[in-house]
Amino acid sequence: MPKVDLDRIEQTNKPGYPAPFDQPVQGRWYRRLAPATGLTDFGASHVVLKPGSWSSQRHWHDGEDEFMVMVSGEAVLIEDDGRTIMRPGDCASWPKGSTNGHHLVNESGQDAVFVVIGGGERSGGGYSDIDMLFTETGYTHKDGTPY
Amino acid sequence: MPKVDLDRIEQTNKPGYPAPFDQPVQGRWYRRLAPATGLTDFGASHVVLKPGSWSSQRHWHDGEDEFMVMVSGEAVLIEDDGRTIMRPGDCASWPKGSTNGHHLVNESGQDAVFVVIGGGERSGGGYSDIDMLFTETGYTHKDGTPY
Repeated sequence: MPKVDLDRIEQTNKPGYPAPFDQPVQGRWYRRLAPATGLTDFGASHVVLKPGSWSSQRHWHDGEDEFMVMVSGEAVLIEDDGRTIMRPGDCASWPKGSTNGHHLVNESGQDAVFVVIGGGERSGGGYSDIDMLFTETGYTHKDGTPY
Repeated sequence: MPKVDLDRIEQTNKPGYPAPFDQPVQGRWYRRLAPATGLTDFGASHVVLKPGSWSSQRHWHDGEDEFMVMVSGEAVLIEDDGRTIMRPGDCASWPKGSTNGHHLVNESGQDAVFVVIGGGERSGGGYSDIDMLFTETGYTHKDGTPY
């Protein structure tokens, strides 16, 4: 049955980031849909952002295109050039290599739900607001020192 | 501005299929989001299905993973094993190579909107209910004769 049974896919809020950068994403509850449903050409995640939570630290990818579509609720997309309210049906594209860091922040009082797609090579990227990079070997400071 | 300005992307109902297979998709109005927004790792289309319209002939891909998320309205997903109502927030995955043909039919009285992602190689595929294949050289009958 190709309709995705979301209830059967593990939902986690595992942040991955070193402390204290993990704190703002504690309310990001996500499901990895691609491995659970047999997709290998791209990644797909279903994300529930609890009120107050961030989708990620503000970041970009060097080698991966990213795309999202808002499903329900409302979140603020924050980028170098400002703030944009994202509502159901709104989409955003982040071509790889653009260093215009982005994240979504749920400033509302209810859950915000979106689906995000990623493709390409996990070759690394950067964070706009903190002293961190992600590399093939993990998170580092901008001078290359590992966390 | 990475938020996609849908109004600035051409919307078309060009079917591509040879007649008469193009008739049921006349009310499928789509926008190709990837080329318009600089994505190359996967394809992404925003689709408005008018009442009565089909998303496609019922089909599968030999070399492309496909994924969709319903944004608004309601459509019926039809596959070998039956019918499933798709509502906002519902997702479906079709791993490449599965010959469980699928399409969406809008049996409601209002528009149904979804976003569909495709990745991998456009190496061909088949149609479940009609005498047609798609190949690298175009549409053919199942015996290989071109349309």
